[in-house]
Amino acid sequence: MVVGHAHAPPVTAGRGPVGSGPGEVSGQRLEDEDLPPDTVGLLEGLTTTRAIRRYRDAPVPPEALRAILFAATRAPSGSNRQPFRLVVLTDGDRAAQAKSLVGTNARRLWGAKRRGDAYDGGSGTDRASPKARLADAMGVSVERFETVPVLIFACLVRYREPTPTEGASVYPAVQNLLLAARALGYGGVLTGWHHGVEPELKALLGIPDEVALAATITLGVPAGGHGPVRRRPMNELVFGDRWGRPPPWAVDPPGTRHTSAGPPPGR
Amino acid sequence: MVVGHAHAPPVTAGRGPVGSGPGEVSGQRLEDEDLPPDTVGLLEGLTTTRAIRRYRDAPVPPEALRAILFAATRAPSGSNRQPFRLVVLTDGDRAAQAKSLVGTNARRLWGAKRRGDAYDGGSGTDRASPKARLADAMGVSVERFETVPVLIFACLVRYREPTPTEGASVYPAVQNLLLAARALGYGGVLTGWHHGVEPELKALLGIPDEVALAATITLGVPAGGHGPVRRRPMNELVFGDRWGRPPPWAVDPPGTRHTSAGPPPGR
Repeated sequence: MVVGHAHAPPVTAGRGPVGSGPGEVSGQRLEDEDLPPDTVGLLEGLTTTRAIRRYRDAPVPPEALRAILFAATRAPSGSNRQPFRLVVLTDGDRAAQAKSLVGTNARRLWGAKRRGDAYDGGSGTDRASPKARLADAMGVSVERFETVPVLIFACLVRYREPTPTEGASVYPAVQNLLLAARALGYGGVLTGWHHGVEPELKALLGIPDEVALAATITLGVPAGGHGPVRRRPMNELVFGDRWGRPPPWAVDPPGTRHTSAGPPPGR
Repeated sequence: MVVGHAHAPPVTAGRGPVGSGPGEVSGQRLEDEDLPPDTVGLLEGLTTTRAIRRYRDAPVPPEALRAILFAATRAPSGSNRQPFRLVVLTDGDRAAQAKSLVGTNARRLWGAKRRGDAYDGGSGTDRASPKARLADAMGVSVERFETVPVLIFACLVRYREPTPTEGASVYPAVQNLLLAARALGYGGVLTGWHHGVEPELKALLGIPDEVALAATITLGVPAGGHGPVRRRPMNELVFGDRWGRPPPWAVDPPGTRHTSAGPPPGR
């Protein structure tokens, strides 16, 4: 495969979305087109891809979807079985119905989670806290769910009974998808908003009974931007030689910002 | 966070492993060091990261492990709970014991799988077929398992009963890890060679009972190299608007090579 970035331009801090400007849609046939050149470095992309939940009112053009989904399908899977399938919805009646079904469900699930996980208690009473900011972003995103430019269901074609490790053959593809979106100026988020409406979604989209819905992903041009992500300090997540003991090299780069975010410990 | 690649050099086809040459180990304290600059583009990395099962007899130095594991921990997880933990083993008695335990188990599992999945039948009788080449690479890798430079166990700290979708909070970190290795001139592979010896491994490494082993990863300097991966054609994996119908833009880039690999259909 000759990829378009074999002789790529210098890595920069990124660019605007690929193919979204007037006149940028090539008249060439896709069969003859390489992938777009890279403007974001690999390590940079891995450390600065945020969960993007809010989008500008702009579509993701076909040539961008092609590159993003191609990269997703290059992910590894057990024995290279490639049991993942990605169902992409943009416009039209069926897409609108799917967005409505998942949006309604997402508002129900998020309402229950916000209460159950006490997002508005503890540090969440400080509106500037990471917890409160996550809760606000989640609230806005589920309210506007029907307006997401692209809705993608990551599916798993099972060949055996469900296991807790079967995700090893679908979530690497999902992560590739989110990183590829970042590479082209887009952004997305991995959610479980399909939980509870799987039968309705399968009926709507013609997904066979034996296929599992593994993730609901939304995608678009970020309303905000990508950048360094907040996580726990590395020495809480990485151990050396045995459990619980961080190795001496588990040291965050200068300027790393931290959060434990999410629900309170123990929830 | 100020990352070292904010003003990165041009993307090239890659480079030798970071920090592996004589004199390349910096005397600076890691706390003051940014991540290494990027030499591989993001989209390029996503589409050319192979499963690397055979390694040169060379270590992965601390500054490379630091960058690789940092990138792994920047992955997304449900509610940003960050329930993943990565236990990294390199040298010493405990590492040797873990490698021996997993190696012995891998040879047992692979022997059963090679027979059960008929890797040596059908197209596997042609030694040049993707199936036979995968089988050969697997055979060699399990034979030499004890020599892997780095062994990493990806763990999941559960907060609820096991579910088929819990992997959404650990396998993105695993994929980031493998991609970050690629970024720095290393390579690795995601395996399930811990299956069946979890109790022995947990006892050896002090991993609590309630923590799940999600993946066994090996890492090192590739004996071969990275490059375009073989998968099914994109239009078999990506659907538009509904199940089973590829969208018109699901077109592989020129020169893409394909395989269904793995075990025969239906296994």
